[in-house]
Amino acid sequence: MQRIYFNEVVTRDGFQNEPAFVPTDAKVALIDELSSCGYAKVEVTSFTSAKAIPMLRDAAEVMGRIRRVRGVETTVLVPNVRGAERAIESRADELNLVMSTSESHNLANLRMPREKSFAGLREVIALAAGRVPVNVSLSTCFGCPMDGDVPQDEVLRWAGRFADLGMRGLTICDTTGMANPAQVSRMTKALRERFGSLQLTLHFHNTRGMGLANVLASVQEGIDRFDGSLGGLGGCPYAPGATGNICSEDAIHMLHAMGYDTGIDLPRLLAVARRLPQVVGHDVPGQLAKAGLVTDLHPAPFHVAELRRKFS
Amino acid sequence: MQRIYFNEVVTRDGFQNEPAFVPTDAKVALIDELSSCGYAKVEVTSFTSAKAIPMLRDAAEVMGRIRRVRGVETTVLVPNVRGAERAIESRADELNLVMSTSESHNLANLRMPREKSFAGLREVIALAAGRVPVNVSLSTCFGCPMDGDVPQDEVLRWAGRFADLGMRGLTICDTTGMANPAQVSRMTKALRERFGSLQLTLHFHNTRGMGLANVLASVQEGIDRFDGSLGGLGGCPYAPGATGNICSEDAIHMLHAMGYDTGIDLPRLLAVARRLPQVVGHDVPGQLAKAGLVTDLHPAPFHVAELRRKFS
Repeated sequence: MQRIYFNEVVTRDGFQNEPAFVPTDAKVALIDELSSCGYAKVEVTSFTSAKAIPMLRDAAEVMGRIRRVRGVETTVLVPNVRGAERAIESRADELNLVMSTSESHNLANLRMPREKSFAGLREVIALAAGRVPVNVSLSTCFGCPMDGDVPQDEVLRWAGRFADLGMRGLTICDTTGMANPAQVSRMTKALRERFGSLQLTLHFHNTRGMGLANVLASVQEGIDRFDGSLGGLGGCPYAPGATGNICSEDAIHMLHAMGYDTGIDLPRLLAVARRLPQVVGHDVPGQLAKAGLVTDLHPAPFHVAELRRKFS
Repeated sequence: MQRIYFNEVVTRDGFQNEPAFVPTDAKVALIDELSSCGYAKVEVTSFTSAKAIPMLRDAAEVMGRIRRVRGVETTVLVPNVRGAERAIESRADELNLVMSTSESHNLANLRMPREKSFAGLREVIALAAGRVPVNVSLSTCFGCPMDGDVPQDEVLRWAGRFADLGMRGLTICDTTGMANPAQVSRMTKALRERFGSLQLTLHFHNTRGMGLANVLASVQEGIDRFDGSLGGLGGCPYAPGATGNICSEDAIHMLHAMGYDTGIDLPRLLAVARRLPQVVGHDVPGQLAKAGLVTDLHPAPFHVAELRRKFS
């Protein structure tokens, strides 16, 4: 059985878009539950300014209180050198840096041109060198909601610039759910050819319903790492009402049904997923928590037994 | 560009699960709008007993009032000889017959053993011979919510028995969203090998989020016909709260983005989809109507222009 590795991003990417603050106790409890399910990695939080993202203002406390589980790496989002110092202090197993491959999206989201982002992240990478591995997440790799097409060569160019700095991994993000499976096949093929020695992670959103089809296209090209968000949490400000990140349990369930090994205890994960609406105070997009596993069978209605007798 | 053919089932399979009656005028208006979008086929209604499915008690009136559009076939579900006579009288272009490959599901749903269903449908096929083409939809081909696994050979056996009776087409249905892409690849490969001369249609549900991944797996094996339901309407009584049929506009959007030709005017279809919640009185699962086309770009926030000036 081929192994697929999942990075759970609900408490960072998912919570970041939530309107109501999730108490620190609830975050710690949720992360501990997720760690016990067998994830390869959990993106715990972000060491950004409390003003920019009030939801994650308790980053250091959360990192200090969560249970560390052998085999489950903690990764944290880091926007700059100050954040990196705090993240290293918090004993994160990995730093995750972010910038966009689209200039407009980088300006909209990070409020600086891409070159300025790159220069800043290069400093972070220098700081981390020899202390903690670094992953870089490249946003809008399959299209920008403002500029439209992002050429594949542009994505490969930014990936190459970071690879040259000695990254451990690259995450190729479909930030607003614009990727289609044909595009994903082309992109993942090119990425594997050029950056096959790095940890390559694919990050999809289900904004237009294509999330799991894109996961399928990726595994067909040999990709074995994905970001997922419990319950599919993590909206996009450009598509109100639309779903967000791919739902971890839905994706994992599909891959298990296909015969892949993710190392995850799916019934246990499903139990955690079913408590998520209480944590965030609203329904979530994930389907599996509502429908149950394919192997969860239902009793036949009463008339079936009657009919069996009648026709036997 | 490879052509993919869509059969829109919302006014039959979709409406059949709706709690509130959709007025005949609204049904006729919706079907006329759908026909103008370029579908290959529309499953308009069902000639079943008004008592069994009150929602579709106006079948004859709907068939009498809809506009017939060249190139758009009308198909109607028919449970028995009486229904077939009414359907032929209504000038349906095709009769669609249904039975389950799972004994328990057939007993639960059609209240008779599969052999009795087969015998009844054979009479319908004899009646239709030389007058109107017949399609047979086989339910629970990828698993039964009560019995679990349905062996692929069992599906092929029933498909073969119907093919021997001179069907025009077979629809292989994942009635409760249990199929996974690996299983779909195996099944569609076997179907194409044995029944390649028939119209082969795949009918998926998105109950566990795998709907569009299964469409992808099917087209990769050369399948070119799908059932879809506007807005993803069409629930399943065994998975309350879960989504139903694959959403037509979401599936068509994915296939267009991949370079397939469905013959469908997608912006027009999306406009129809966006009116569906008013028709049924509630939100629907489809994503595209909320998120918009991949090509629907958004204006950049105001600070982007400011930042461009500052950094230029």
